[in-house]
Amino acid sequence: MNGSYAPPVQRLVTELSKLPGVGNRTAQRLAFHILRTSAEDAAALAEAIREVKEKIGLCEVCFNLTDEARCRICQDPRRDHGVICVVEEPSDVIPMERTHEYHGVYHVLGGALSPIDGVDPEDLKVAELLARASSGESAVREVVLATNPTTTGEATALHIAEELRVRAPNLSVTRLASGLPVGSDLEYADEVTLGKALAGRRAV
Amino acid sequence: MNGSYAPPVQRLVTELSKLPGVGNRTAQRLAFHILRTSAEDAAALAEAIREVKEKIGLCEVCFNLTDEARCRICQDPRRDHGVICVVEEPSDVIPMERTHEYHGVYHVLGGALSPIDGVDPEDLKVAELLARASSGESAVREVVLATNPTTTGEATALHIAEELRVRAPNLSVTRLASGLPVGSDLEYADEVTLGKALAGRRAV
Repeated sequence: MNGSYAPPVQRLVTELSKLPGVGNRTAQRLAFHILRTSAEDAAALAEAIREVKEKIGLCEVCFNLTDEARCRICQDPRRDHGVICVVEEPSDVIPMERTHEYHGVYHVLGGALSPIDGVDPEDLKVAELLARASSGESAVREVVLATNPTTTGEATALHIAEELRVRAPNLSVTRLASGLPVGSDLEYADEVTLGKALAGRRAV
Repeated sequence: MNGSYAPPVQRLVTELSKLPGVGNRTAQRLAFHILRTSAEDAAALAEAIREVKEKIGLCEVCFNLTDEARCRICQDPRRDHGVICVVEEPSDVIPMERTHEYHGVYHVLGGALSPIDGVDPEDLKVAELLARASSGESAVREVVLATNPTTTGEATALHIAEELRVRAPNLSVTRLASGLPVGSDLEYADEVTLGKALAGRRAV
């Protein structure tokens, strides 16, 4: 019965339950935690939320999140600026970086093409990618399409690949491999993934 | 690789991961949600956190959370002030209220006795409860011990029951029933719960 909460507690529960994966029960648990925690910790959380909305914008080159005009990856001279990895969301940069195998730069589209949801190429940073990859003075050699292996992600990759073929025919355009996850079991693989793994089989 | 986050994003992830049940991955997910959400929603969340720490204190009578001197339950003349339900935490008031079966008032101890963790009666609002229940001018008829059915909750209930027996011998002191949860299956009941259910069996 929410009626027994004091209004400030109720407001916090309401705001917390707007977070993804946070239902009413979890919001209550989080609110009671915040009530128990030190004033400093609560203030630090509130301040971090404010600060992130105030200071974080999109990189003018790759549209990743940044607190400067250009993100730290675009600013880094040790990164290979001749290779651009195209991802859907800023959060997709993190798993790519975690591999420690990628040393190029990024381009964050801001979503995936989905005509049903009204997401067209103009709603994404597609034109900016094409300009980046095909401008005469750029030294881009390869574009790695790392959109998600979903219907919309595949459609987005296909659309970009076609556009790049027209505008920059000498550019190498690649796509992340689909297949069985490492450590998984053939027995439990879904048929689509297994089909992709078969189609993408390589000589040993 | 956290190194690729802008510092304000990293700070938000750090603060979010201090919340209970929120690991690093969940904190990242929540942070990216806050980055995507409207400025108003983010500001409302930050403000709700600040406000709750600023305005919420403990009721001077029952020690439940309140934004006034007395909580709304203690202020409510329709509640039966002759029955006090003793709970461990403010969050325990909510499920009791949700039953719609309890019309008395509360007393929030602020924890449970646990000598191992150094929690003694002086660390809880036990003296305040004894004063409330046994003061001559109070019209308290019953104290319902609704501490958790755990070792520490049982010990707390036992301690309070003994103290009340000495100070207010005419007071009715009761304890919530332990037994099988409604909708559960005997087959999967643990032996302690089943033992309690058997010991507490009632004539039909």
